[in-house]
Amino acid sequence: MSNDKLSVALFGFGCVGQGLYDVLNHSEVFQADIARICVKDPAKERRVAASLITFDKEDILNRNDIDVVVEMITDTEEAYRIVSRALGSGVNVVSASKKMLATYFSELHELQEKNGTALIYEGSAGGSIPIIRTLEEYYDNELLSSIRGILNGTTNYILTRMELEGRDYGEVLKDAQQNGFAEADPWSDVAGYDTLYKTLLLSIHAFGIVLKPDEVLNLGIQNISFADIRYAREKGLRIRLIGFAAKAGDKFRIYVLPHFVKPDDELYKVQYEYNGIEVEGAYSCKQTFTGKGAGSHPTGSAVLSDISALTYNYKYAYKKLNKLRRQRHEQGQTGNDLSLLDKDFTLKVYIRFKSKDELARLDIRHVEEEYRSPEVNFIIAEVGFSSLYALRDDIGQNLFVCVVA
Amino acid sequence: MSNDKLSVALFGFGCVGQGLYDVLNHSEVFQADIARICVKDPAKERRVAASLITFDKEDILNRNDIDVVVEMITDTEEAYRIVSRALGSGVNVVSASKKMLATYFSELHELQEKNGTALIYEGSAGGSIPIIRTLEEYYDNELLSSIRGILNGTTNYILTRMELEGRDYGEVLKDAQQNGFAEADPWSDVAGYDTLYKTLLLSIHAFGIVLKPDEVLNLGIQNISFADIRYAREKGLRIRLIGFAAKAGDKFRIYVLPHFVKPDDELYKVQYEYNGIEVEGAYSCKQTFTGKGAGSHPTGSAVLSDISALTYNYKYAYKKLNKLRRQRHEQGQTGNDLSLLDKDFTLKVYIRFKSKDELARLDIRHVEEEYRSPEVNFIIAEVGFSSLYALRDDIGQNLFVCVVA
Repeated sequence: MSNDKLSVALFGFGCVGQGLYDVLNHSEVFQADIARICVKDPAKERRVAASLITFDKEDILNRNDIDVVVEMITDTEEAYRIVSRALGSGVNVVSASKKMLATYFSELHELQEKNGTALIYEGSAGGSIPIIRTLEEYYDNELLSSIRGILNGTTNYILTRMELEGRDYGEVLKDAQQNGFAEADPWSDVAGYDTLYKTLLLSIHAFGIVLKPDEVLNLGIQNISFADIRYAREKGLRIRLIGFAAKAGDKFRIYVLPHFVKPDDELYKVQYEYNGIEVEGAYSCKQTFTGKGAGSHPTGSAVLSDISALTYNYKYAYKKLNKLRRQRHEQGQTGNDLSLLDKDFTLKVYIRFKSKDELARLDIRHVEEEYRSPEVNFIIAEVGFSSLYALRDDIGQNLFVCVVA
Repeated sequence: MSNDKLSVALFGFGCVGQGLYDVLNHSEVFQADIARICVKDPAKERRVAASLITFDKEDILNRNDIDVVVEMITDTEEAYRIVSRALGSGVNVVSASKKMLATYFSELHELQEKNGTALIYEGSAGGSIPIIRTLEEYYDNELLSSIRGILNGTTNYILTRMELEGRDYGEVLKDAQQNGFAEADPWSDVAGYDTLYKTLLLSIHAFGIVLKPDEVLNLGIQNISFADIRYAREKGLRIRLIGFAAKAGDKFRIYVLPHFVKPDDELYKVQYEYNGIEVEGAYSCKQTFTGKGAGSHPTGSAVLSDISALTYNYKYAYKKLNKLRRQRHEQGQTGNDLSLLDKDFTLKVYIRFKSKDELARLDIRHVEEEYRSPEVNFIIAEVGFSSLYALRDDIGQNLFVCVVA
């Protein structure tokens, strides 16, 4: 480090960046200052000194007096270029770009190893909840059996309002967009991609398994209708979009699916834009962590914590990842971790459909209930997971799948 | 360390100890084995090899092949003697004895510093919730403004059942004792001492302030009656016994008091024997951690995590404590941390009383409501905290005090 205080450069200067600037540069207590800010739009007015602003990433990446790069831009490929350049040139990085991190994890991990740099990203999963650090530091491998989480504030906000207000998906989504709880293009949230990226990052720190986004099943709530919510309500249940990762023998079960949850489930109580993560470990004890998921403040809070951690040289040790690799190496296993993903099991699911031929792609083992009416058809059945997994490429517009506990 | 696996000695062999024995000695994955167990009662049958058992603590403390002592006995003074002997002779210690830890913290901290040994105690607060490690590692000083927690499973169990079943304190306490949720002598739990010890330990790891049990206010639920629960219910509130610690300028406000909590408060949802801790930090974000508080499994889970942490040489860095001491030293402040305890503020409280002269000891600034009937008298008033603080020595049998949010 070049001096007492960390010299921080920001990429991106939205709400989170501006909040960070206020906290870091106007407070005596933090051992970090923002020295340079790279933004895209030269036309936009900024409420900081022009000398701090640059439009050229090279202005930051070519300097040798920057200790930490904080990357908070939306362009995944550009984010990857910036983060890998910084890590490769000995600069530590804080990032909250979950898609970029999940997509390029292997490359970024290698860069850290090779250059002795740190990439930390608490803001990428669980909003303000310190879940990555807790999984990494507290839950030793053998102490952890599963994690299940509501990881996306937007979908949880939509599900909560649909249930409490008795309204349909389209209406509530529109409202959420107007209130700033959903993006103009909500696909990444509602189709479960955002939850998927976060689930992949949590799986790395929970179990050491590294999977790519297109290797793991994510079905979202994009096809939900009020009929599904009504069904849940009648049974005293709620619907929650859950990212799940668990040990299963020597393998792991990992997926993102809507779930019915019961009132005694801690995730039942997680409402609106809140995130909640349940960790199950030794002695079958469960701990739940909740906090605001969406919005600039939770992310800012986590990013600030990461910057602060870098002031005392924190980095993820990737203990579980290293252990898993060692084990696989000893067992003569080669290739990526996809072979560790268990697909050979069944799930009991609720499937709403329009016409019966839409079910043809599913490996339905046993139908427990079947309901037909002019408006709604659904079955509750044990279904082979592999056939659900195959739906990740295209679930169509008529199926809604929800796990029955 | 003497070999690949940590050699662990147990003091105490109750439920937690037996569970630890099963997990550590019958699983290949843990890098720790139990080598010796010290117990008190020679007459009791044990389901482990007699060669593992000793009745003389010297058999363990005089050996030089023990890496870790796990202390889980109920006698505070004896626990202190064992833990300080071990730390002083270079042995790391895991303890869950909150009273001992809170009472002798300064001495034990000094022993760790002097001998380079580690004393870790996640099982001492928050049951299975990894709160101490999270406060120590994740929440840097400046990122944290307050913590408030339901830290005692027994009182929360009693409060929950009183409310849900509409029953009075004495009856529910008796039931709780029969069900194993309350001790034969419930005083430490119901009078708030257990919550106090935990609050003191959390305050050390949250803010670095070290206070002794008799320096901090704890009022419990020992004087509660169903009238108080009924009042809360009528207002849509619940009563929770809360340990509270927060920054207040250069000082800290720390106390244990019953509180009315509202439905939108995360602690409202924490029921029965669960613990819940809300941490408020940067950007005013709140995170809540919940998990089972009472019982051998949550404690066992935390103790196991601590043992596991010692296999990779973890120790608390006491960053905040060291920082606070440095600051105080620079400012020329001497003496203990009691001068940092803020007592100069008012709290809005509900006080139920029998006769008005019982209120004479209180510095009542402003009465907002007053209710009298043949059965129940209460006031809601702004009260100077110092006068409540004075009640910690003796609240008597007729006053019930509860903070109004």
